[in-house]
Amino acid sequence: MSEYANMPPQEIRKLFRANKLVRPTSGMAKGFTQANLAILPRELAFDFLLFAQRNPKPCPVLDVTEMGSAEPRLMAPGADLRFDIPKYRIYRHGELVEEVLDLAKYWRDDLVAFLLGCSFTFETPLLDADIPIRHIEENCNVPMYITNIECQRAGVFHGPVVVSMRPIPQAMVIRAVQITSRFPAVHGAPIHLGDPEAIGIKDIAKPDFGDPVTIRPGEVPVFWACGVTPQAVAMTVKPELMITHAPGHMFICDVKDHNMSVL
Amino acid sequence: MSEYANMPPQEIRKLFRANKLVRPTSGMAKGFTQANLAILPRELAFDFLLFAQRNPKPCPVLDVTEMGSAEPRLMAPGADLRFDIPKYRIYRHGELVEEVLDLAKYWRDDLVAFLLGCSFTFETPLLDADIPIRHIEENCNVPMYITNIECQRAGVFHGPVVVSMRPIPQAMVIRAVQITSRFPAVHGAPIHLGDPEAIGIKDIAKPDFGDPVTIRPGEVPVFWACGVTPQAVAMTVKPELMITHAPGHMFICDVKDHNMSVL
Repeated sequence: MSEYANMPPQEIRKLFRANKLVRPTSGMAKGFTQANLAILPRELAFDFLLFAQRNPKPCPVLDVTEMGSAEPRLMAPGADLRFDIPKYRIYRHGELVEEVLDLAKYWRDDLVAFLLGCSFTFETPLLDADIPIRHIEENCNVPMYITNIECQRAGVFHGPVVVSMRPIPQAMVIRAVQITSRFPAVHGAPIHLGDPEAIGIKDIAKPDFGDPVTIRPGEVPVFWACGVTPQAVAMTVKPELMITHAPGHMFICDVKDHNMSVL
Repeated sequence: MSEYANMPPQEIRKLFRANKLVRPTSGMAKGFTQANLAILPRELAFDFLLFAQRNPKPCPVLDVTEMGSAEPRLMAPGADLRFDIPKYRIYRHGELVEEVLDLAKYWRDDLVAFLLGCSFTFETPLLDADIPIRHIEENCNVPMYITNIECQRAGVFHGPVVVSMRPIPQAMVIRAVQITSRFPAVHGAPIHLGDPEAIGIKDIAKPDFGDPVTIRPGEVPVFWACGVTPQAVAMTVKPELMITHAPGHMFICDVKDHNMSVL
């Protein structure tokens, strides 16, 4: 249990802002939504937003800043995305060039920041319903796979849907579908369950990202669209500048996971 | 019952395209989603999309075309938004200048077309659940009101949320909330129920748009965010060119209402 589990998001972000806390955010501010960050120049922002609009399952947009503003007004009014994340990655022309603790040196008036939903948000209600989550039990990263399902193109952006996989006991699969369906703003219902080959996954034991997890007898692999998709897609066009959070070092919102549900 | 109730969307759109059928689309292609149209120049399209992303209840985006393309690839691949709607309105600097049957003379390479969800889509499942819809019973337009709830601003766009109102018998209110919650892509759950004054509506008998309807004893006024909001908001910035469908003359999609539900 993180010592920051019960600290409010605003307090934790202050520690990030002062660079007094630099570590992955998993387990912090329990119950509050954590989000992925992607920052792009304005000339790519419209196509990226359009891509997200057309592909809401892999690309659940939680907030988009005004051009030049770093305040995510919907998800955390008053916060500053240049400082309030523990660690950032700077990519130039698709290459990782630096990891930094704030964006003071990198921010520009033509940048637009996107906060994208993360599957942590629907894992909370799954756990609340006693549905086991294997990668948490095995203390590793969720396994992720590149599928043969193409995203809907938008302008310069295109690419395959990346999925995360959770093995669910047969008797709990329907409940897992119901629960995650209530969260369309954070990936929503699974996009596939059962046979991995049907969506182009050759070897379930060898994920393209993250770690393999045990699938026990009587368990069904269930596949959700994954937030890695938009970053992977954005990277293929090698934008002159793109900034993301460092893996695991997420933005902690003021909104609770339970308030992301439609029902 | 419209004689076009059982004709498929593709066939009806052919009649529109040939200008052989020019009338409101209500009751046509029963069960298929009908959408509002808004066309804007590219320089406003990003802010408009952002406005919709921040205000998903009043502005449910169903599809956005590539700049210069009139094909709504998600909602009706192969259709052409310049021809496949019975009647259009052309606005210049916020003024209605013409009603036309197609956009051949008006289309430009810098235009982006938005299809926005419409409450018709959630009225079908309400009726399926035997929840009465008064403006249908009274054969008039749904009453709409300007509220004191401000939309989230985005770039140049801002303004109040417009709501539609349906009086629902007390015993059916909860079911109506549940049913419409399943349709976040088309306004979703109500934003208010009960006291109209609480959201700035002075006189429920005098709607700002549409027609007044009877509220019977034991009925509760229930308010949903309304698709008039984005058009009203877009108009306030008096765009050099804006094109919409003519009222009631909607775009008929290939997607069924029942497939717009998340659960």
